[in-house]
Amino acid sequence: MALETIRDMAKSARKAGLQLSALTLEQRNRALLAIGDSILRHLPEIEQANARDLEKATAENLSVPLLNRLKFGPAKAQHVVKGLRALAALPDPLGRVQYANELAQGLELYRVSCPIGVIGIIFESRPDALVQISSLCLKSGNAVLLKGGREAMETNQALCDAILEGSAAAELPEGWCHLLHSREDVNEMLKQDDAIDLIIPRGSNAFVRHIMQNSAIPVLGHSEGICHVYVDQHADLAQAVTLTVDSKAQNLSVCNAAETLLVHAAVADAFLPVVAKALSEKGIALRGCSRTQQIIPCEPATEEDWHTEYLDAMISIRVVDTLDDAIAHINTYGSRHTDAIFSQDAQAIERFMTYVDSADCFANCSTRFSDGFMYGFGAEVGIATGKIHARGPMGLEGLCTYKYKLYGHGHTLSDLNAGKFPLVHRALPTDNEHR
Amino acid sequence: MALETIRDMAKSARKAGLQLSALTLEQRNRALLAIGDSILRHLPEIEQANARDLEKATAENLSVPLLNRLKFGPAKAQHVVKGLRALAALPDPLGRVQYANELAQGLELYRVSCPIGVIGIIFESRPDALVQISSLCLKSGNAVLLKGGREAMETNQALCDAILEGSAAAELPEGWCHLLHSREDVNEMLKQDDAIDLIIPRGSNAFVRHIMQNSAIPVLGHSEGICHVYVDQHADLAQAVTLTVDSKAQNLSVCNAAETLLVHAAVADAFLPVVAKALSEKGIALRGCSRTQQIIPCEPATEEDWHTEYLDAMISIRVVDTLDDAIAHINTYGSRHTDAIFSQDAQAIERFMTYVDSADCFANCSTRFSDGFMYGFGAEVGIATGKIHARGPMGLEGLCTYKYKLYGHGHTLSDLNAGKFPLVHRALPTDNEHR
Repeated sequence: MALETIRDMAKSARKAGLQLSALTLEQRNRALLAIGDSILRHLPEIEQANARDLEKATAENLSVPLLNRLKFGPAKAQHVVKGLRALAALPDPLGRVQYANELAQGLELYRVSCPIGVIGIIFESRPDALVQISSLCLKSGNAVLLKGGREAMETNQALCDAILEGSAAAELPEGWCHLLHSREDVNEMLKQDDAIDLIIPRGSNAFVRHIMQNSAIPVLGHSEGICHVYVDQHADLAQAVTLTVDSKAQNLSVCNAAETLLVHAAVADAFLPVVAKALSEKGIALRGCSRTQQIIPCEPATEEDWHTEYLDAMISIRVVDTLDDAIAHINTYGSRHTDAIFSQDAQAIERFMTYVDSADCFANCSTRFSDGFMYGFGAEVGIATGKIHARGPMGLEGLCTYKYKLYGHGHTLSDLNAGKFPLVHRALPTDNEHR
Repeated sequence: MALETIRDMAKSARKAGLQLSALTLEQRNRALLAIGDSILRHLPEIEQANARDLEKATAENLSVPLLNRLKFGPAKAQHVVKGLRALAALPDPLGRVQYANELAQGLELYRVSCPIGVIGIIFESRPDALVQISSLCLKSGNAVLLKGGREAMETNQALCDAILEGSAAAELPEGWCHLLHSREDVNEMLKQDDAIDLIIPRGSNAFVRHIMQNSAIPVLGHSEGICHVYVDQHADLAQAVTLTVDSKAQNLSVCNAAETLLVHAAVADAFLPVVAKALSEKGIALRGCSRTQQIIPCEPATEEDWHTEYLDAMISIRVVDTLDDAIAHINTYGSRHTDAIFSQDAQAIERFMTYVDSADCFANCSTRFSDGFMYGFGAEVGIATGKIHARGPMGLEGLCTYKYKLYGHGHTLSDLNAGKFPLVHRALPTDNEHR
């Protein structure tokens, strides 16, 4: 792809984004449904493209779980179309009055949610993610530049063609959605800081950091989940076993699965043998610190293990002397994603909730609940691991910003300063719901 | 300053930030008052330091307005202490429940505001800004690294010493507030992306862009204000004259002063001579496009003028054919700060409010109202010109992020999937106020 093309894409997206921001909810919802219809209509071409991707990936010896993620057939098509219809049914994230204040008589301030503008998203190989991400951008009035995984290139192109045909039928502004094809395209995209407002990279910590270091565009990182469960000295140990197993083993390849188990020394002798048995029954291999190794048989855990998101049948285990040691471990090695304490001590729970510097702090439940749908957001773009703008599971609200609108009747600061009218600062009604 | 010292500062700030986040509102407020007392107690030393800064600045021929901004005497000390006491009286920005949802019976999700962590702020020469910014960080539970203007170096050091003495008296965690001294210090600070969560640069567009390009830390830019006023064909012209004069001339050296006047062609003949007279009476020089020059005597405006924040007795004027041309001019040359339309046509106002891509869109009032105190926020860090996280006048809320806290009773995803309990997604009460 020629360099100037990415520039052109970004500029056309900027123009389309402004037009999108003025569309009504009905126009955006109609487009979501038209896109769904178009995907179903073009399913044969999409499946053919997917077959070519799968053939190539098989030849390249992609693992079975990755092949399953790559596969896009009628079941996944039905699933994404169901998602589009559910998204159309969600309330409008735009135009919400978040703050309203009568500054002076006849001088009314409104803080109103609006689209961010143009968003660049870099995501992994799953082709259904392309539909989910682009439709979330559309619902929130944002133009989007998308870069999917190399393995799904043909499927993504076929899906994007279907999306654009549906968009045209619904008279969306041309240029609202672009598909990028290569790493060079991404590098060009990172330079368009006058035309792109936000980059959302989904991937490893190193990848997200690379993006942040190579762009003047704001970046909302959705990096890996090095999630911890901590079993406190005042834990219900039977419950802690169940919760540890669910957090680690319910699904191995997800970012909210636990990777490290921290155990208070006071309960290590009682807890570790039981949890080791339960985890082993699920096929989970154990790697432990030296104190863990004295209690249960396991491989030694190295410094690297504490830094590792296994996404696999493996867990690292460390015995800690205090709650604060557990917190310090999490703040040192974690990825600020999701961390849980299992305890019946309310004070210990509150200390954990306050001092653990992660987006999602859980008490006595599985880390697997860290998810936008679970949280009641209807849909999610991903799970933001930074601390700015949006944090944790990121729904439509995270794709919006706001602007202040001030309506007056000839109000000047000179008159205010001359005492010709007073400031009143009277709160006006807002839209109470938060998403 | 040795390179490792900035690293040490950032690390000690990270540690102090976590401790700050757990302080009660009362502890933070007590510290604000102690800092105020300490500044008054040390006023003689602060004034001596300021005299040295002023002497040096005078020798370097700093302009009179800049010298006035640099001066820190008893009046400014009283003003900042009044500000500290007002800040102590503001409600707590931390611990607010923004969203709450009972996901399932006994599984309760709370989204709660919390400090961002460690913030690096680079600001201009005004020494009172140091007190304002550090106190806003303290109230919002954030540790801070501060870099002020070179001209105010000695005053800033004396103020910082007084702040730290007050902090110690109030038993704030050591290391919560650091003063940087040089550009090299700033460059080192920009590299501490594991210890600093946010950089807030206040300065020119070019400066903010430079910071964004040289750090992997998220940046909230507070750049210049190239603010516009647009006089629509359906404006009340007499009112538009008053509003234009107030927007431009009420205070020349502020970021929310208007720099460019756009006039609809249909009213240019009637409006321009009147506004030109009113502006000239305030000593404002005029630079106009070719069509403006045909109506009133003025210097020609060049392409550069449209890009310029004068902060001076100068305004650029352009005649446009349509509302959309005015919007396009603002979105091309503006800095997304504050732009106003003067019109009696509600449709034109709404089109302007929707399509102008600025933080603050005003109708029929002066751009000078773009200010955190005016907006009812009590205090402001600055006016954010980006679109991510905080936008427009940024109060305490902009210095906070949130975390999700999920409290369960042994809830697992396996049990949910096995139908042992249902999702209920029942809204729980939140703290309704927004700031």
